Amino acid sequence: MIYLTRRERFNAAHKLYREEWSLEQNEAVFGKCSNPNWHGHNYELFVTVKGEVDPQTGFVIDLKELKHIIEAHVIEKLDHRNVNLDVDFMRGKMASTEVLAIEIFKQLKPHVEANGAMLHSVKLVETENNSVEYFGDE
Amino acid sequence: MIYLTRRERFNAAHKLYREEWSLEQNEAVFGKCSNPNWHGHNYELFVTVKGEVDPQTGFVIDLKELKHIIEAHVIEKLDHRNVNLDVDFMRGKMASTEVLAIEIFKQLKPHVEANGAMLHSVKLVETENNSVEYFGDE
Amino acid sequence: MIYLTRRERFNAAHKLYREEWSLEQNEAVFGKCSNPNWHGHNYELFVTVKGEVDPQTGFVIDLKELKHIIEAHVIEKLDHRNVNLDVDFMRGKMASTEVLAIEIFKQLKPHVEANGAMLHSVKLVETENNSVEYFGDE
Amino acid sequence: MIYLTRRERFNAAHKLYREEWSLEQNEAVFGKCSNPNWHGHNYELFVTVKGEVDPQTGFVIDLKELKHIIEAHVIEKLDHRNVNLDVDFMRGKMASTEVLAIEIFKQLKPHVEANGAMLHSVKLVETENNSVEYFGDE
Amino acid sequence: MIYLTRRERFNAAHKLYREEWSLEQNEAVFGKCSNPNWHGHNYELFVTVKGEVDPQTGFVIDLKELKHIIEAHVIEKLDHRNVNLDVDFMRGKMASTEVLAIEIFKQLKPHVEANGAMLHSVKLVETENNSVEYFGDE
Amino acid sequence: MIYLTRRERFNAAHKLYREEWSLEQNEAVFGKCSNPNWHGHNYELFVTVKGEVDPQTGFVIDLKELKHIIEAHVIEKLDHRNVNLDVDFMRGKMASTEVLAIEIFKQLKPHVEANGAMLHSVKLVETENNSVEYFGDE
Repeated sequence: MIYLTRRERFNAAHKLYREEWSLEQNEAVFGKCSNPNWHGHNYELFVTVKGEVDPQTGFVIDLKELKHIIEAHVIEKLDHRNVNLDVDFMRGKMASTEVLAIEIFKQLKPHVEANGAMLHSVKLVETENNSVEYFGDE
Repeated sequence: MIYLTRRERFNAAHKLYREEWSLEQNEAVFGKCSNPNWHGHNYELFVTVKGEVDPQTGFVIDLKELKHIIEAHVIEKLDHRNVNLDVDFMRGKMASTEVLAIEIFKQLKPHVEANGAMLHSVKLVETENNSVEYFGDE
Repeated sequence: MIYLTRRERFNAAHKLYREEWSLEQNEAVFGKCSNPNWHGHNYELFVTVKGEVDPQTGFVIDLKELKHIIEAHVIEKLDHRNVNLDVDFMRGKMASTEVLAIEIFKQLKPHVEANGAMLHSVKLVETENNSVEYFGDE
Repeated sequence: MIYLTRRERFNAAHKLYREEWSLEQNEAVFGKCSNPNWHGHNYELFVTVKGEVDPQTGFVIDLKELKHIIEAHVIEKLDHRNVNLDVDFMRGKMASTEVLAIEIFKQLKPHVEANGAMLHSVKLVETENNSVEYFGDE
Repeated sequence: MIYLTRRERFNAAHKLYREEWSLEQNEAVFGKCSNPNWHGHNYELFVTVKGEVDPQTGFVIDLKELKHIIEAHVIEKLDHRNVNLDVDFMRGKMASTEVLAIEIFKQLKPHVEANGAMLHSVKLVETENNSVEYFGDE
Repeated sequence: MIYLTRRERFNAAHKLYREEWSLEQNEAVFGKCSNPNWHGHNYELFVTVKGEVDPQTGFVIDLKELKHIIEAHVIEKLDHRNVNLDVDFMRGKMASTEVLAIEIFKQLKPHVEANGAMLHSVKLVETENNSVEYFGDE
C-alpha cells in the first residue's frame, strides 16, 4: 500500500453567512468573513489516493488520469468562481473550508475508485495559516 | 543606503471587466477573470523602503511603524473586501494587479516619507505564478 | 470527523545542555547546539484539532477561538523569549524540539477540549529540514 | 511516542520505460516521462522516525546520526545520478516515484532500527504538485 | 512603467562537461555535475516584462499571451527534455544555468516585444539554493 | 553581465539593545526584541555576485568556490552563535538585520573579488515577513 498526493489550485470568491440571519448576527459569528460583497482565496487542494503499485508501470494510479479527474470534477467547477453562487455541489451549503473539503471528497471518490485506487484524503489549504483535511466518513 | 522589505497579506474578491462592455466582450478580453459573480485571491504584498541606517537603533525605519502604516492604509481597506466595490482608492479603476500595485504605492508613499524613509517599490503577488512590481513614476 | 490545522510562529533562543555535565560533555553530545551563549530559531507551530462539523456554522472549531488559545497559552510565552530561561512550562526540561512539542501539546489540550473539539497533534518545525510531531500519549 | 522528520534533497535524472516495449508503447503509457534522452528532478525526501524521547538528551534519535544514515545510504547513491543507470538498489526496477520511495524505505529501515528508533515513513516529493508516501508493508 | 513577472516550470536532465576534455578533467572542474549518465532538476523560470499600463485593460501585457509565448518558445522545448541533447537553441553550448538563462532571454525577447512590452529579465532557479538572473546585454 | 545568487542559512540568537540605556528605554524603543535573555532566528542569506560568463565553463563564478567563501567567512562565524556576543565582525555594533547585512557584505566583498567576480548584493531574511538588502556604498 502506497500513498500518492496530487496538488491542484483554484482561485475563488466566497463568504460565510446564513441567509436567515441578519447582517449583525452574521458578523457576530463570522466576523469579516461575512462581508456581503465577498472576499476570496487562492485555494490549494491536495488529493491523496492509496493502493498497490502496478508492477508493469510502477504506478499506484496514472497521474495524468488523476489530474484529469480533479480538473474535470473539482477545478473546472471552482476556479475563478463564487463558491456560494456558482458551484452545483455547494448549493445550499455553508462555504466553509471544512464543508468544501468534505464535498470535494464526495465528488472525487467514485472517480478515483473507478480507476482502481482508493481516495485516502482531501486537504484544502485556504491560507498559509489555515487548512482542513478530510478522510471520509468510514 | 539600505533596502528593507515588509510582507503583509490580504484576502480579497475581484473581477476584471469594463461596465460599458457586454458580458461577451468582457469574456473575450478577460476570460474567466471576468466571471460576474467574482473570484478571489490571497494577495501577498511586499513593501520595500530605503534610506540610511540610524546609528542609534540600527534601523532604516522602525518596523513596527512600517507595519502599522501598511495595515492602516492598505490591509485594513483590502482584507476580506471586494477590490471593485469596497475600496475607496480603487473606485472607478480596473482591479488588475498592475493598477492595484500602483494605487497601493500612492497610498503608502506619503506615510513612509513622513517616517524619514523613501518608498522604493511595491510588489504584489496574486498567485504563485503571477506578480507585479511598481517603483513609482520618477 | 474532520481535521483543522492552524499555523502560528514564534522566534526564540535556546540551547541543548545538561547543567550537571561539563562543557566538553555537552559539546560531545549536543555539538554546536550546546553553545553556552545560545542560538535561536523561527519556530513554526502547526496545531491540528478534530471533531464534527457544526451544521450551523460549518466549523469544527471557531478559528478565531483556536488562534486565541494558541496565542494566549503558547505564543505569548515563547515568542521573543529564551526557551530555557523564560518559559514556565519548560522549566527544568530539555529544550529539544521533541520535548517542546510535547509540552505545547499539554498546554493546549484542555483549552481545545473546553471548546468542544479534540486536540489531534502538535507539529513543531525548527528548521526547513527538521520537525517533530506529537499526537498525545493515548 | 513522538515522530521526527528529517528532510534531505537530491537532484537526479530518470525516465519511465520498459525495455521490452517499443518507443511507441512507452510513450503511449508514460507520455513525455519516457523521453529516451532522460529528464530530471530536484527530489525532496522526508524521512520520519518514531520512538520514545530519551530523558537524558530530549531526543528520539540523534539528528546528526539520522542525517548521516540518510546521506550514506540514500543521498550519496542518488544525488547527481541517473536513477535508472547508477543506483544499485534500483537496478531492474521502474524508476517511478512510488517504487523509489519503497526502495529508499528498505534501505533506511535497518539503519534507523540499529539506532534504537522505528522508521515510520518515507515521503518523496518529485515536483511541487506530485508526491508519494510509504509506511512499510506491515 | 510597471514590471510583471510570470513563473513557469520545467523538469530537465543535463550535465556539465566539455567534449574535448577527458572524464578526469571534467570531473576536476565540474565535480558531480559532470556525471556522464546525467542528472536533472525542477527548474523554475521567472520572466519579467515591463511597460506602461493599458488604460482599457489595466494590463502591461495580456498574461494569457505571455504564458503562451513562454510555453511555445521555452517550456515546450525544455520540459521533460535533455538540455544538452534535445534543445535546438542550446546545441553546442554549455548547459550551465548562466548560459541557459541567457539563451532563454534571447528566445523570448522578440516575442515579448511583438506584444508591445519589453523583456526586463529572465531568472532561472536551478535549486532552492542556486539561481541566476539575466537582464540582456544593453 | 549576469547575476548569480547563492542561498545559505544560519540559526542564531540576538537581541536589540544599547548598553548605555536602561531596560525601560530599550524596551520602549526595541519592544520584545530587547528581551535581556535573547531570542533567535533562522536567518536566510542570499548572496548575489555578477560578472561575465566564462566561455570555457559557462560560469560567472565557480559555485563551489562561492559556497566555500560564504561558509568560511560568514556561516562558520554566525551559525549556532549569538550575534551580539560571539561574532568578531559584529563586536560593538547593533545586531539589527540592517547592520548585519552591511557587515556580511563587507566580509564577503574582497573574497568574491579575489575570485574574479563582483559582489552585487547581500539579502538577509530574518522572518518570512522581514528582510533587508544591501548593495554596497558605491
